[in-house]
Amino acid sequence: MQPRIHCITNYVTAGFCADLLLACGALPVMADAPEEAAEITAHAAALTLNLGTLSRDRRTAMLLSGQEANRRGIPVVLDPVGAGASAFRREAAAQLLCEIRFAAIRGNASEIRYLAGVHAECDGADVSAEDALSDQTRAASLAAASALANKTGAVILMTGETDLLTNGDTAYAVHNGHPMMSRITGSGCMLSALTAAYLAVRPDTPADACLTVLCTMGLAGEIAAKRMTGQDGNASFREYLTDAVFCMTEQQLREGARYEIFR
Amino acid sequence: MQPRIHCITNYVTAGFCADLLLACGALPVMADAPEEAAEITAHAAALTLNLGTLSRDRRTAMLLSGQEANRRGIPVVLDPVGAGASAFRREAAAQLLCEIRFAAIRGNASEIRYLAGVHAECDGADVSAEDALSDQTRAASLAAASALANKTGAVILMTGETDLLTNGDTAYAVHNGHPMMSRITGSGCMLSALTAAYLAVRPDTPADACLTVLCTMGLAGEIAAKRMTGQDGNASFREYLTDAVFCMTEQQLREGARYEIFR
Amino acid sequence: MQPRIHCITNYVTAGFCADLLLACGALPVMADAPEEAAEITAHAAALTLNLGTLSRDRRTAMLLSGQEANRRGIPVVLDPVGAGASAFRREAAAQLLCEIRFAAIRGNASEIRYLAGVHAECDGADVSAEDALSDQTRAASLAAASALANKTGAVILMTGETDLLTNGDTAYAVHNGHPMMSRITGSGCMLSALTAAYLAVRPDTPADACLTVLCTMGLAGEIAAKRMTGQDGNASFREYLTDAVFCMTEQQLREGARYEIFR
Repeated sequence: MQPRIHCITNYVTAGFCADLLLACGALPVMADAPEEAAEITAHAAALTLNLGTLSRDRRTAMLLSGQEANRRGIPVVLDPVGAGASAFRREAAAQLLCEIRFAAIRGNASEIRYLAGVHAECDGADVSAEDALSDQTRAASLAAASALANKTGAVILMTGETDLLTNGDTAYAVHNGHPMMSRITGSGCMLSALTAAYLAVRPDTPADACLTVLCTMGLAGEIAAKRMTGQDGNASFREYLTDAVFCMTEQQLREGARYEIFR
Repeated sequence: MQPRIHCITNYVTAGFCADLLLACGALPVMADAPEEAAEITAHAAALTLNLGTLSRDRRTAMLLSGQEANRRGIPVVLDPVGAGASAFRREAAAQLLCEIRFAAIRGNASEIRYLAGVHAECDGADVSAEDALSDQTRAASLAAASALANKTGAVILMTGETDLLTNGDTAYAVHNGHPMMSRITGSGCMLSALTAAYLAVRPDTPADACLTVLCTMGLAGEIAAKRMTGQDGNASFREYLTDAVFCMTEQQLREGARYEIFR
Repeated sequence: MQPRIHCITNYVTAGFCADLLLACGALPVMADAPEEAAEITAHAAALTLNLGTLSRDRRTAMLLSGQEANRRGIPVVLDPVGAGASAFRREAAAQLLCEIRFAAIRGNASEIRYLAGVHAECDGADVSAEDALSDQTRAASLAAASALANKTGAVILMTGETDLLTNGDTAYAVHNGHPMMSRITGSGCMLSALTAAYLAVRPDTPADACLTVLCTMGLAGEIAAKRMTGQDGNASFREYLTDAVFCMTEQQLREGARYEIFR
């Protein structure tokens, strides 16, 4: 049985996210009208809320769907795209964090730091230079992620060159991934959608589910990059990435996953 | 001369539908503002209305464009994505069926059964398990499709493992297709867009035009699946599918079409 | 440092435009809510406004963002998709031309002629037959483009079989390109986004920047077409086109650019 994943997401990457969900065996349902959002959520196995191309209506739909999901115990993922980039997004992010209980929050270092209340320069979907996840900033980033985990009860996925994952208690560093992933639009959105799919199947062990997501997506990026020929660029890489998730076997994942327990 | 196809459709698959229309030699025009929808329709050769990511404005645009098309004798296709999934979609579907005369309606078994007034569990774009088009349910499905054809005057395309086509009098079963088509988002939307393009060229023989569409798309799916290598997944399949429509010759279609007259 | 390009654009090709911007080393930011548009623009290096799938809100956002960009000296590109196709677009185009100062305007012959006040049959994103850029119409087209350049102060990019470029003083004809580019959706939108990226990097020599854009995109089309195999169609061509921009070297461009000074 394919878990149905309700996505309230931006129109830039909606098609890519839907195909990725189908690649991993889930069933995407995109619906963002306030008139029907909660009703659609009621029949879903998980919900993902993505702040890209935010609008008034989409914000209202996110609130209604998030509340419906919380009532029914359906896991909800937040992707705070460019959370600090405008007053409109700051207010939306604050309201969502206040009124919805999230199972997971997935963002880059700037977005997570912003949500954690740490000052972060965050005026776009991209991570600011000073927030790039290097060794130097890793300790500060982990502190922000842990603070956000403790504040919200969500598993935090902070993605970058090295991905960090924490539920406030345990923390992992995931070393899978490839620089090409930052050369396609929506690799973050896709990761958030995938997180919802894995949480739908394993709602009782969210940290484990999220760790599997980070390793799967990162490994898919590595496989996709290996497949590139001299004429291939980011468009072919996008195809190969989704293809790699589609073709991923348990054995590939077992042998390819590279992570360490951090704390 | 390329027929211009006006699509009022969801944002998830709009780009994929546009490329498919270009693949078959048509010219897509996507426009969904109520302020201009009817004016755009007036210069189109066919119109397709798709309920995915429905919104108030898009619903209004559909009504205005559908009425304009009816006034001008421009064929209109309905894709009732998730028609029974919410009150909002149920009402929109009911109003469209009431106020617009459709040349063709394309949906899965759940959607068609819902529109025909037959009880069907229909809470997403996917077909419910009990509505999957197996031999067991084929008779019931055909009855629903015929009822809808008689009620609306439209050719009904009910797609699934086997596709059914009926105008109320004659019925066809089309055996072309491939399971991979259910692993990409929007293969239904793309089929509906293609239907509009074929109706634009052959408005006087809609059942024949729709039969050609089902065989073309199904055959393209078979060709695309044959082209897949071990590393290819649903993303590459998507490209190959559109490529196959682009490259399809009359001879390929003549030799590859597999259908039977049903009744 | 990647220049951040704010795109207020249609949802059909937004994902394709974002990937193309990433291909050339820029960073796309798509945001179209009136509540945040100007604030997003303030942190961008260039702005592109695209009339496809125009809506009331998107039109308001374009005005606010365009004015903010003008205040800050950020270059703005206009893509007047189907500018004459409806009263709604005519009014929007007129208002934008009146209230915003554009660094560049990119359209096909019908769209540019319409904006220049020359009668042009323009009822869609496609160029009308009589406006196709043949030798016969080139003189008239150049006159229209020059008039629009003089009226607006913008560099005009009029694309077709041969591309024309003029700032009112000098004019160029660019011979790069391939007919397959008209068989994918959004090659015009992608070109306009690319123009914004190049203007962000070279704001002081806009005509030179635009000439480089036309040669780059056209050459990428030629490279992509050469890469096609017998089974490839427009979907694969789309991937190859973006790939070619991603892989383009200065040497390739220097050796492959084909243009002439016209006047």
